[in-house]
Amino acid sequence: MTARLAFLGPSGTFSEAALLAMPSSAGAVLTPEPTVTAALDGVRAGAYDAALVPIENSVEGSVSATLDELGFGEPLVITEEIALPVRFALLARPGASLGSVKSVATHPHAEAQCRGWIASNLPGVRAIPAASTAAAAAALLEDPAPFDAAIAQALAAQRYGLQVLADNIADNEDASTRFVLVSRPGALPRRTGADKTTLMLFMRADHAGALLEILTEFAVRGINLTRIESRPTKRVLGDYYFSVDLEGHMDDARVGEAMMGLRRVCAHIRFLGSYPRHDGHSPALGPGTSDEDYADAKEWLAQIRDGDAV
Amino acid sequence: MTARLAFLGPSGTFSEAALLAMPSSAGAVLTPEPTVTAALDGVRAGAYDAALVPIENSVEGSVSATLDELGFGEPLVITEEIALPVRFALLARPGASLGSVKSVATHPHAEAQCRGWIASNLPGVRAIPAASTAAAAAALLEDPAPFDAAIAQALAAQRYGLQVLADNIADNEDASTRFVLVSRPGALPRRTGADKTTLMLFMRADHAGALLEILTEFAVRGINLTRIESRPTKRVLGDYYFSVDLEGHMDDARVGEAMMGLRRVCAHIRFLGSYPRHDGHSPALGPGTSDEDYADAKEWLAQIRDGDAV
Amino acid sequence: MTARLAFLGPSGTFSEAALLAMPSSAGAVLTPEPTVTAALDGVRAGAYDAALVPIENSVEGSVSATLDELGFGEPLVITEEIALPVRFALLARPGASLGSVKSVATHPHAEAQCRGWIASNLPGVRAIPAASTAAAAAALLEDPAPFDAAIAQALAAQRYGLQVLADNIADNEDASTRFVLVSRPGALPRRTGADKTTLMLFMRADHAGALLEILTEFAVRGINLTRIESRPTKRVLGDYYFSVDLEGHMDDARVGEAMMGLRRVCAHIRFLGSYPRHDGHSPALGPGTSDEDYADAKEWLAQIRDGDAV
Amino acid sequence: MTARLAFLGPSGTFSEAALLAMPSSAGAVLTPEPTVTAALDGVRAGAYDAALVPIENSVEGSVSATLDELGFGEPLVITEEIALPVRFALLARPGASLGSVKSVATHPHAEAQCRGWIASNLPGVRAIPAASTAAAAAALLEDPAPFDAAIAQALAAQRYGLQVLADNIADNEDASTRFVLVSRPGALPRRTGADKTTLMLFMRADHAGALLEILTEFAVRGINLTRIESRPTKRVLGDYYFSVDLEGHMDDARVGEAMMGLRRVCAHIRFLGSYPRHDGHSPALGPGTSDEDYADAKEWLAQIRDGDAV
Repeated sequence: MTARLAFLGPSGTFSEAALLAMPSSAGAVLTPEPTVTAALDGVRAGAYDAALVPIENSVEGSVSATLDELGFGEPLVITEEIALPVRFALLARPGASLGSVKSVATHPHAEAQCRGWIASNLPGVRAIPAASTAAAAAALLEDPAPFDAAIAQALAAQRYGLQVLADNIADNEDASTRFVLVSRPGALPRRTGADKTTLMLFMRADHAGALLEILTEFAVRGINLTRIESRPTKRVLGDYYFSVDLEGHMDDARVGEAMMGLRRVCAHIRFLGSYPRHDGHSPALGPGTSDEDYADAKEWLAQIRDGDAV
Repeated sequence: MTARLAFLGPSGTFSEAALLAMPSSAGAVLTPEPTVTAALDGVRAGAYDAALVPIENSVEGSVSATLDELGFGEPLVITEEIALPVRFALLARPGASLGSVKSVATHPHAEAQCRGWIASNLPGVRAIPAASTAAAAAALLEDPAPFDAAIAQALAAQRYGLQVLADNIADNEDASTRFVLVSRPGALPRRTGADKTTLMLFMRADHAGALLEILTEFAVRGINLTRIESRPTKRVLGDYYFSVDLEGHMDDARVGEAMMGLRRVCAHIRFLGSYPRHDGHSPALGPGTSDEDYADAKEWLAQIRDGDAV
Repeated sequence: MTARLAFLGPSGTFSEAALLAMPSSAGAVLTPEPTVTAALDGVRAGAYDAALVPIENSVEGSVSATLDELGFGEPLVITEEIALPVRFALLARPGASLGSVKSVATHPHAEAQCRGWIASNLPGVRAIPAASTAAAAAALLEDPAPFDAAIAQALAAQRYGLQVLADNIADNEDASTRFVLVSRPGALPRRTGADKTTLMLFMRADHAGALLEILTEFAVRGINLTRIESRPTKRVLGDYYFSVDLEGHMDDARVGEAMMGLRRVCAHIRFLGSYPRHDGHSPALGPGTSDEDYADAKEWLAQIRDGDAV
Repeated sequence: MTARLAFLGPSGTFSEAALLAMPSSAGAVLTPEPTVTAALDGVRAGAYDAALVPIENSVEGSVSATLDELGFGEPLVITEEIALPVRFALLARPGASLGSVKSVATHPHAEAQCRGWIASNLPGVRAIPAASTAAAAAALLEDPAPFDAAIAQALAAQRYGLQVLADNIADNEDASTRFVLVSRPGALPRRTGADKTTLMLFMRADHAGALLEILTEFAVRGINLTRIESRPTKRVLGDYYFSVDLEGHMDDARVGEAMMGLRRVCAHIRFLGSYPRHDGHSPALGPGTSDEDYADAKEWLAQIRDGDAV
């Protein structure tokens, strides 16, 4: 059966480019959705098998809309992630030239990331805000076009039959965005040894040691966190939960035991998936933290409980 | 001498409203700046004594631009904070009525927060993205106006001589934004007993226990954190620092000792200010964590070191 | 089959009194052994089913001989404990009177604990050291008796047909000794809810955090220790192990998980038994540490691993 | 002025040998006292400047009498320590030979430590308990001698004009005893960089995390413990304090801060001295724990509190 996949649209966004770069999108029907909420609600409603949405930008930090959409409402889980370098291009209608550009539209974030290039190459140009980079590109097809050029990614040129006047125009060449593929809960992605697990942790009480308690549950099992953020629960001002990414898969013995420890310590936990890391980086396991160590300890305990001398 | 204060503009933004609500803006010259960067760079350059910028939104989370601008470049410190309920109004030129609104402009974030109200009260209206809510309001003065109405805050109606067609139109009435007043380093704001301190903590190494080590420095002195975020350092992908807010003032004995502990444990620390909490909430001190307890312990140690029986 | 039980002799010691006070000695054959080593080696060799030996005195602290004998050599486990108030009596041959006592023999420890009473009631008496309190009592039967009286416990008067000249003569009335019944490994004593577990923990390395690591394994599962001692391993000077008693039974879920954690962290562990506390005191369980909490967490983890929404 | 020093007597004990081995005993008047209590009370009363008493044996563990005498009553502090190999000799009156020994007296602990040698070299000999090894040696001078030989240390042969029939007869050649020189509180011994500090720590409450709290105070400052023992307070059964030795001197910055932390956390602390280690072993300091690191952190904090950019 053909997979139905949504992405944060419109056509030509970074999200579409990221989705196309994933092997699992081969042969699937890809559909743009105007917002993260619309894309994820479509998955919840069964209209899509999965949706690709941005979750973190190396410059901007976490994408709040995604974190929050995943965290509240019907459960969804992350099953894949991918990171894409942020690469902006200046697009115009065929036949245009750099010299003729007097106005350029793009999303304010993109404008901010290309400000240096614009100042050097398009002095005096008028910057026009758009709802998204792809929307700016699409608007160039209107007649008459409301502005001369758009900053978007190269894929948008293909999608809308536009011309790339300049490529790689972001001021910071190392910026990248991480995207996650989200679906309804089901069988976990197979453990690869280089995995990540995403959780939302709600505390029982806001005391000086609450976060320390949580982190001790991880540290005592030798689990490293790659991201942690306190985020407002939106219920009461000053009431927080923790959004964390950890190194490991729910099927790792050490992660399983830590999860059970958190379950006993936290008021509530939302599991947002175990999935292969985009960078294939395997964690350096400390002594006593491998599955073999856990299996050995379990067998040893069983012997002691049986009354065998050990 | 008249204080010169910048705020995130243009005129009529939430930032201006927040600044006006602060006693310290009385009698000052207030100047809008187009971006957080411009406002803070103006402070660094000495053009302003201070600047007011948003730092956290109860719906969107932290404002990355502000966190990052504070964290890199010439040192700046926070000296005051204020939290303002997010309150959106529908503005139009004088004489307009709700029935005549076919297009409405605003910042995409604002549009997202009023989507429910729009669907109920302006079905079929065309939404137009703007660089900011205040910019949308200002554009209504153009001739002809590029759209019929703007979603902005009520202050913008005063600033631009507009009419409020509807007030309090945000879907979530509890949303609020926290703003900080930022200046060049100088004498710390006086300790009030209900203070907050903001830090950036850079780790020596990314090992399983690094964050635990940091938190232990706080916990062992009974200090509670109100916010923690791992943020990319932008130097190497996957290299993080921690942005934290803690309960207490640098002049509190327990905070001072924790700071010295962090100094010994961290690769680098940036101090971003101790300032009165906007909510006036004093922390519940655990046993042995008051200034008196610290003073007593210091005196006791001196006696022991002097060889007195204690 | 009649149980064969050894105790630290000779006949009439506190150990014999303690053994007689245990229900499990009813109908058993009781045999004195001259030393803790002899008693425990007899159990190891199968000559006895169990042996009762002292392990801790409220005045003297731990009984090193017992801790060490349990800790090295063929495995043995504690299956019961009992605490007995230390109660000394002044014994003499029938017909003697207090006024005629010019010399009194006893173990040096006992002499130390009755020194105040002796000074007040037997001024000028000559104190003679004996290998044990019971041995001093027994020697009164020699002809001629080598001294006039012995300080021992009242049981010795029965055993040797002596007269109690004065009872309760210890200076500290609250002193007590704890004894343990030791046998070869076998089925663990049934869990009562008010249990204790004894362990020897050998560290991997002697670093600043080694002991903290061990204690964290307990604390993270809400387990309280009632005794901890660093003891020389006798292999290298300055090389230590930890002898600990903890609240709980090996069959408690929290104790089992802590044991597995210690197994992964320690170089070596010797399990010395789970047994009912002599004082019947049940631990106050913190939130999330009961068997039900562990069972709930295990089931929850299984659901997540199965891909169910939770 | 001539120093007046007491030691645990009688003349010829290990304690006397240990005291003679200390440079500080040169030229002093040395006086035996029959018990640890008598020796320490003599110091308290001003009869002695200091007293040498045993505190730990590599075979027997801590000497309870010493720990407890130091811990309660008028304050005393340890100013020096020394460790001596435990070396037993078989002593007899001049002219005796090994073949003629039918009875041998010694302290029960010494008898236990030479049992193997006795069984091999004096089969069938009668063992007679004595109050101390030196007392057994001294009794050989009585006429007639109550037994043929004594097990004591070689010094006793000199003291009492006896003959050494056999030397080095202990079964375990590696056994050693540690002694401490104790005086009234006064100026602390100078810091050498290879020091030890002894403390008694009384907890506020007996909860699962109390000991962890204490150890965290040490660990967070990188301080290693070389000994820890929970000991009964003798006030209430089951009420414990912790007796600890730590690596470092009260004048070390890290030890001072830990002490202040403990002062804030514990119900009560008794300081029992900082003194040079007998083995001259300097601790391996972790990063951030040297006096320089503490001084740097203090200066840095002062700058921040003064409002300087750092």
